[in-house]
Amino acid sequence: MGIIVQKYGGTSVGDVERIKNVADKVIKTFDQGNDVVVVLSAMSGVTNDLLRLANEASDNPDKRELDVLLSTGEQTTIALLAMILKSRNYKAVSLVGSQADIRTNNISGNARIMSIGSGSINQLLKDRNIVIVAGFQGYDVAGNITTLGRGGSDTSAVAIAAAIKADMCEIYTDVDGIYTTDPRICTKARKLEKISYDEMLEMSSLGAKVLQIRSVSFAKKYNVPIHVRSSFNEEKGTMVVSEDKGMESILVSGVALDRDQARVTIKKVPDIPGISARIFTPLAEGDVSVDMIIQNTRSDSRTDISFTVTKNDYKKALEISNRVADEIGASGVICADQIAKISVIGVGMKNHSGVAASMFQALADENINIRLIATSEIRISCMIEEKYAELAVRVLHDTFNLDKNEAIQS
Amino acid sequence: MGIIVQKYGGTSVGDVERIKNVADKVIKTFDQGNDVVVVLSAMSGVTNDLLRLANEASDNPDKRELDVLLSTGEQTTIALLAMILKSRNYKAVSLVGSQADIRTNNISGNARIMSIGSGSINQLLKDRNIVIVAGFQGYDVAGNITTLGRGGSDTSAVAIAAAIKADMCEIYTDVDGIYTTDPRICTKARKLEKISYDEMLEMSSLGAKVLQIRSVSFAKKYNVPIHVRSSFNEEKGTMVVSEDKGMESILVSGVALDRDQARVTIKKVPDIPGISARIFTPLAEGDVSVDMIIQNTRSDSRTDISFTVTKNDYKKALEISNRVADEIGASGVICADQIAKISVIGVGMKNHSGVAASMFQALADENINIRLIATSEIRISCMIEEKYAELAVRVLHDTFNLDKNEAIQS
Repeated sequence: MGIIVQKYGGTSVGDVERIKNVADKVIKTFDQGNDVVVVLSAMSGVTNDLLRLANEASDNPDKRELDVLLSTGEQTTIALLAMILKSRNYKAVSLVGSQADIRTNNISGNARIMSIGSGSINQLLKDRNIVIVAGFQGYDVAGNITTLGRGGSDTSAVAIAAAIKADMCEIYTDVDGIYTTDPRICTKARKLEKISYDEMLEMSSLGAKVLQIRSVSFAKKYNVPIHVRSSFNEEKGTMVVSEDKGMESILVSGVALDRDQARVTIKKVPDIPGISARIFTPLAEGDVSVDMIIQNTRSDSRTDISFTVTKNDYKKALEISNRVADEIGASGVICADQIAKISVIGVGMKNHSGVAASMFQALADENINIRLIATSEIRISCMIEEKYAELAVRVLHDTFNLDKNEAIQS
Repeated sequence: MGIIVQKYGGTSVGDVERIKNVADKVIKTFDQGNDVVVVLSAMSGVTNDLLRLANEASDNPDKRELDVLLSTGEQTTIALLAMILKSRNYKAVSLVGSQADIRTNNISGNARIMSIGSGSINQLLKDRNIVIVAGFQGYDVAGNITTLGRGGSDTSAVAIAAAIKADMCEIYTDVDGIYTTDPRICTKARKLEKISYDEMLEMSSLGAKVLQIRSVSFAKKYNVPIHVRSSFNEEKGTMVVSEDKGMESILVSGVALDRDQARVTIKKVPDIPGISARIFTPLAEGDVSVDMIIQNTRSDSRTDISFTVTKNDYKKALEISNRVADEIGASGVICADQIAKISVIGVGMKNHSGVAASMFQALADENINIRLIATSEIRISCMIEEKYAELAVRVLHDTFNLDKNEAIQS
């Protein structure tokens, strides 16, 4: 018995029948004696339908009004679930973002949760209500409706769990947990029993799109245990939790692949102080988000600077780079968009060397050229040609024995 | 130049193209130097789609949650109109019920507006925004979303007009004004230039479904001039205003037909004090709304009591009446549902006799039997057989020369 927050994504509430299945799961948890708060996304497809309407209305829909429009999606699902629960004689109350007192900043379309007033939810729970909260939305200090950006319902759920000090935040989705790598690419991929927040952060930012990255940061900050599991079966999924001793004994937890990458290299940049700022400030001003940056010093007191961006930002990055290259007297710009980033992740790396070497050797054995390397404390990423992406995933999965439980021990 | 509230109904905002037409009209009014507040309904069909979803979710959807669901309809249209206006470089802000501070009582699905805090709307107007408010919705003192019942957007518009002391409340709809009678029945029906609140109240309660009756009461109470007009052309419509001298010179302004009627007669009711209460209290408790009531005293110290109800309440009224007839020792119940109520309405009647006599004579000349008669200060209603309904409308329209302007003068 405890306080459980359950979040159901768009496919889990895709139609009224599925929402009835959600009701079954909610009731089961409630009948076990738990307090239950449910956070819902919009029915799958609804957000896209609303975006289509918005684009009919305007080529560049106003962001404040887009939030007013999009927030109706979750409002619909919470009302439907509450109706279903009440028709089964359970007390239930739906709350939109402002009613749940989910206060955000005023960045329409990509707002951040600033605070959650837990008073109303706590009171409703005390009165034995199942509380159903619209995910993805909040309101700002001026009373405007805001949304948290795509996938924001995960963050809503974790933030509510933190605010009401829930014992568990269950994220129900259409996959049944976090895998060592993408099972569609590597059939040996194995579902992880648990994973640390930090590993999950590296995984999700690298394209394993099960959990929104911001929700994981939130969970880490407030130490909210997350259980990622399928809404279509009763299996246990993957726990996302604080690092523990057992985890550190595992060198590598997963292999992540991100195909949404493009590389820009500015050749023969004069190697003088402040030159990096002259390159990256215009990119930031152009809203281009830069991922990896590598600088190779050459023998001629000039340097090649390479960086990667998402394919979406590629064209804009190229334009800006060409302009900047002219201004700073670089020799030119070369680029590539047929590339992918492959990463191995594991908290165990922190205390062990040799992971990078094993990774590079494994790729070399397959004649896969590494174009860029970037690392964090618990991650090593290599940029490779896109055509080798899937091969690389399988090779690294084998190299680190990820198909076996607790494969590489310290 | 002044403050104009414009309300557009469901067919006027039926799709994005039509909302763009609404934007044209709004801009035209704004560019003439007016402050403009726009009140919108849901796109036509949307409310029914949402009701269908609700009925999939539950046989008897919870009323609070139904309001949460239905209120998304107007939220969608206000966002779309605001986007369109902003993309045309007009300042515009959409407001849902709670943001517009439309406070209601807590009767879910049929809430009444208690107050409107005009502060936020006034401030937005002062900053030269076009303010777009979701009709049909508000919030109660506990913060629950409420709706005003079908047609409630008219009431929202009039109430907002009253709160911000607007110079005019324009109701845009799919008809181009108020007619002397239903043009589909009587081809000679003429559009009225103006009509008094009281006449409009009698018209709308009698089945002329252009304006929600509650909105007219509101307009009368706060003396808000209403202009009912078409959203599909530029013609002037009908002004609904306070009674003036000119109006009183016209005996009859319109003929209204209500087919949604059924009659129940309880025969030979003992004529003792309190007997009416014993009949009508159970009906009220059964939520049966009774319209006309007639009591005929018989020679045998018993009395026949007849009353009319809507066809929807007919079966329930009959059940209750049969039970009550047994209890009070009446001789039985007879009934009829092939009936209609025809009414002539006009403020001029107040000061003139002879209208009733003309009406009865005209019906008699066509051998139309009158089953019940009911009157108010400005209305005479007769219950007749349904098959004569259309004939009666045409005859009375002719009798009172309604096809001619200011026909019957005092």
